[in-house]
Amino acid sequence: MGILRLGHVGITAPDLELAAAYYTQVMGMDLVEQTEDRLFLKCWDERDHHSLSIRHDTRVGLDRITFKCEHADDLATFESRIEGAGYGVGRVADGEEIGQGESIRFESPSGHPMEIVADVHKVGGRLPLTNPLPYPGDLIGIAPPRLDHVLVTCEEVPEAARFMMDVLDFRLTEQLLDGQGHQVIAFLERGHKPHDIAFVQGPNGGLHHFSFWLDDWDHVRRAADILAFNGISVDVGPTRHGITRGNTIYFFDPMGTRNEVFTGGYRPDPDFPTITWTDDNAGSAIFYYEGEVNARFSNVHT
Amino acid sequence: MGILRLGHVGITAPDLELAAAYYTQVMGMDLVEQTEDRLFLKCWDERDHHSLSIRHDTRVGLDRITFKCEHADDLATFESRIEGAGYGVGRVADGEEIGQGESIRFESPSGHPMEIVADVHKVGGRLPLTNPLPYPGDLIGIAPPRLDHVLVTCEEVPEAARFMMDVLDFRLTEQLLDGQGHQVIAFLERGHKPHDIAFVQGPNGGLHHFSFWLDDWDHVRRAADILAFNGISVDVGPTRHGITRGNTIYFFDPMGTRNEVFTGGYRPDPDFPTITWTDDNAGSAIFYYEGEVNARFSNVHT
Amino acid sequence: MGILRLGHVGITAPDLELAAAYYTQVMGMDLVEQTEDRLFLKCWDERDHHSLSIRHDTRVGLDRITFKCEHADDLATFESRIEGAGYGVGRVADGEEIGQGESIRFESPSGHPMEIVADVHKVGGRLPLTNPLPYPGDLIGIAPPRLDHVLVTCEEVPEAARFMMDVLDFRLTEQLLDGQGHQVIAFLERGHKPHDIAFVQGPNGGLHHFSFWLDDWDHVRRAADILAFNGISVDVGPTRHGITRGNTIYFFDPMGTRNEVFTGGYRPDPDFPTITWTDDNAGSAIFYYEGEVNARFSNVHT
Amino acid sequence: MGILRLGHVGITAPDLELAAAYYTQVMGMDLVEQTEDRLFLKCWDERDHHSLSIRHDTRVGLDRITFKCEHADDLATFESRIEGAGYGVGRVADGEEIGQGESIRFESPSGHPMEIVADVHKVGGRLPLTNPLPYPGDLIGIAPPRLDHVLVTCEEVPEAARFMMDVLDFRLTEQLLDGQGHQVIAFLERGHKPHDIAFVQGPNGGLHHFSFWLDDWDHVRRAADILAFNGISVDVGPTRHGITRGNTIYFFDPMGTRNEVFTGGYRPDPDFPTITWTDDNAGSAIFYYEGEVNARFSNVHT
Repeated sequence: MGILRLGHVGITAPDLELAAAYYTQVMGMDLVEQTEDRLFLKCWDERDHHSLSIRHDTRVGLDRITFKCEHADDLATFESRIEGAGYGVGRVADGEEIGQGESIRFESPSGHPMEIVADVHKVGGRLPLTNPLPYPGDLIGIAPPRLDHVLVTCEEVPEAARFMMDVLDFRLTEQLLDGQGHQVIAFLERGHKPHDIAFVQGPNGGLHHFSFWLDDWDHVRRAADILAFNGISVDVGPTRHGITRGNTIYFFDPMGTRNEVFTGGYRPDPDFPTITWTDDNAGSAIFYYEGEVNARFSNVHT
Repeated sequence: MGILRLGHVGITAPDLELAAAYYTQVMGMDLVEQTEDRLFLKCWDERDHHSLSIRHDTRVGLDRITFKCEHADDLATFESRIEGAGYGVGRVADGEEIGQGESIRFESPSGHPMEIVADVHKVGGRLPLTNPLPYPGDLIGIAPPRLDHVLVTCEEVPEAARFMMDVLDFRLTEQLLDGQGHQVIAFLERGHKPHDIAFVQGPNGGLHHFSFWLDDWDHVRRAADILAFNGISVDVGPTRHGITRGNTIYFFDPMGTRNEVFTGGYRPDPDFPTITWTDDNAGSAIFYYEGEVNARFSNVHT
Repeated sequence: MGILRLGHVGITAPDLELAAAYYTQVMGMDLVEQTEDRLFLKCWDERDHHSLSIRHDTRVGLDRITFKCEHADDLATFESRIEGAGYGVGRVADGEEIGQGESIRFESPSGHPMEIVADVHKVGGRLPLTNPLPYPGDLIGIAPPRLDHVLVTCEEVPEAARFMMDVLDFRLTEQLLDGQGHQVIAFLERGHKPHDIAFVQGPNGGLHHFSFWLDDWDHVRRAADILAFNGISVDVGPTRHGITRGNTIYFFDPMGTRNEVFTGGYRPDPDFPTITWTDDNAGSAIFYYEGEVNARFSNVHT
Repeated sequence: MGILRLGHVGITAPDLELAAAYYTQVMGMDLVEQTEDRLFLKCWDERDHHSLSIRHDTRVGLDRITFKCEHADDLATFESRIEGAGYGVGRVADGEEIGQGESIRFESPSGHPMEIVADVHKVGGRLPLTNPLPYPGDLIGIAPPRLDHVLVTCEEVPEAARFMMDVLDFRLTEQLLDGQGHQVIAFLERGHKPHDIAFVQGPNGGLHHFSFWLDDWDHVRRAADILAFNGISVDVGPTRHGITRGNTIYFFDPMGTRNEVFTGGYRPDPDFPTITWTDDNAGSAIFYYEGEVNARFSNVHT
């Protein structure tokens, strides 16, 4: 099986107290564990120890992108394949990292710290495994059921996408080509959804946003209501993407990292073909209702 | 009873063929009657002859705002009250205007041509009066069930609102005050809804937009899908207003008149108090999710 | 103007503690005032003292249906008209009844205790009148914004409807005729909505249900979720009515009175015609999706 | 990878003309191919030749359940495993069956004709692979994007589920146990969704229903509207399942096979645990809003 899905996103933030307040009270995540310089959070329908980690740092940015694989044996396989592709790999022993067992770490050709892990501590979701409700009765804030995907920037999208496909077995679901036919956006998945990770042209190592799943268009409106109630202006949306077909809102957490809530889209199996967007449809590809991308969305990342 | 509701909005447009195509195929209205220089359209759940009329003119703009009153006797009453307030009133005899009987016409202090009519020809809705479906099975485009309201610009909002209240018995549902406590937006209703007409500060006689009712937040998304499908970019939205609480999309018809689709809001009876918005909340009052108003929305009108 | 809307529904229940728990925690109403044998509740967007009153009684049933009129003068007018129609009228002086001023009371030809009141104490809604949110942030339970309508049973529907129309100026929006053309259901309104009150054939004086407004189809699902969460089985729905077009759920409060939550429908002005349903479409008229009415819905009332 | 998902459901029906009319006009599927005694249909977002086949037969029932696997090599693997488990397997050569290549066929221990196929002819979806719309503009009827799952009956649910898990690598997502702890319902998946197939106690070889995916709760209402418009009464719903959390409507095609439309639910990866429902929660497990299962739903299958 190899990689199952995006496991967790790690970010850095200068104010962990503010981060904890926002991600628990507004986003409605559970704070699973907290150390002097780290926060570990998860959504109510996730069973692993964390899907978001926040490390204290004076700079706001990306700390790490971690993918979850099925078996412990997969680590050695991927280690060998990544090294075979010419990239260095480090091992993190069981017990060294909070909330998870042994992992491998490497920097992707796109300049992003990445990690693969098989064993993540199971803390369980908010619902029991016997006779559960459809959702918990005591949710607060937006309360998405789970993390969905991450979008990052890099100088060479084709190289970044190729690495994910050839070395990590990701599938290319959608791509946007510029006027010269050069791939400038690539959507890649392992979790049988439109994307676990996407790359968009920009500086290497940049984080554009990470995104949470919502179940319904009405939950998108409710999320916008909750953001406004908490004084958080939307960046873009509610709107629809051409790519993925999903409905979305973008906004910034109080430290400056862009968040998204997202619903809809298709369910791609491995036999699904890649969808291609051409330069003349770039606006609709990104924001189907507006038909164009505003400068802030294109230029601001962390 | 007096005035029942906004009856119809008349606009001018330089290309009636394009207007007919847009308002029937994209907006999904029925073209009830057409002359050499006029189009008369209605929504599927309206029973009167028209709720939108379009007159050929090289200029895009407002032709007239018509309110429907309950009884023919109301015309004389309003004629007398309008004249008593110092404004000239003209009578349009039965048979002079297409689709309706006798009416009175006058220019409001806000510089808008207005009309009151009691007798509008009944052409019926798309559904029968015996055993109707909840909605017709053959709708195309956005297909709102009915016209909702109109928003116009004028230099002196308090004077415009006062006239509507004192002379025409409108009720003030909401108002926005600037930093000096001067009324810069006024929402007024007769139809037991947040507004039939609203005034916002700007040039006298200007039309900011007119708006159609949708039944549901999902219909707002569907409207945005249909607009994008037809190559019509949204101006603002989907979003929510602070004023009225309604969910909304703004966009322009191909001739340049701003349209809105709108859902939600409360149902005010005559015993409902006026809601006041202060200058420091102006952004949220207009666009609750964005918390601010973009320049195009403030400055562009017809 | 006369009668503005259904003002409040009064019911009886043998367990006020249970009633208070249900109507505040599950229905999410506010308990405005409580005496030894009475509860007065309102919805969050209502400004009058109460829209639901519950009187202690060993029997579960209807206590009174109160309509709100615009002016104090209307009381004398209606008193005279009701007496003129041959029905006795009593006056309740200001100060005699909790939460409201002077009123008139009478028994309708359908055998229901009715009341008309102009002055109801204004306690205000949950939102301020300056810069309000679209809805309160601390709602619990279903939390409908307002009461919508009441449906009662009587032996002679035409007589009951005629009284409401001739004496109280209600308008007939929809009716169902049996195979002999006899009116067996009548929907009547004053509040510019499909109905404030409806009559269905059955025993005189019976209460079939009273209903709360919801803003959206998604709120109907959420209401069903909340009911199930609280162990309250739905009676019928979520489904759609043919009559009114509205979406609905029926269920019973723990004492046995049927409640409904309702959304959608049209907005009738006084110039709207009456819709008629014939016997062969009776099933679809009541429950559009099922096309038939179950025995419990037809036979159980209080 | 092995089995990717439920590939297609084959049913029998006595009237192919009626079946074609219903599945294209009401369900809104595309009729891809038709022979004298077979219909092959697919949904608009499916790219394989068919997801539903209908064979002429005087009896209404199940013809076959076909699963799609990733590689042609998987066929030999599964053939060997099925035979190893003691069940006979037949080969269908490339060219023998319409719309697909080589396959293996066998009867499951639950008495259902099953098939595994790797090569299904790609006819493509309704949308292009370059710059697609979010959905086609010319859909009619309910128009689900894809087939979701099938639910069948058998005498020994544990044996049926064990075969799917041990021999075909399905994962058990949810189960219902009776008062003796005996498994009476088992949900099993390969497509990273709550179920591709489920077994419920009943006669061997029975078909309870097959189900189409919808994207949204509002699409569930729209489906109910379309069914009612076409004179098809709902069997159960709109409602919610406790199992899967999904929202649903059940109804019968005009020949008598039960259909479902379904939305919602979670996305299980292979590391997700099994959810167990106990007998005292059986009603809520099946129909969360009703809290009980009606006799027709339990007893009627084909």
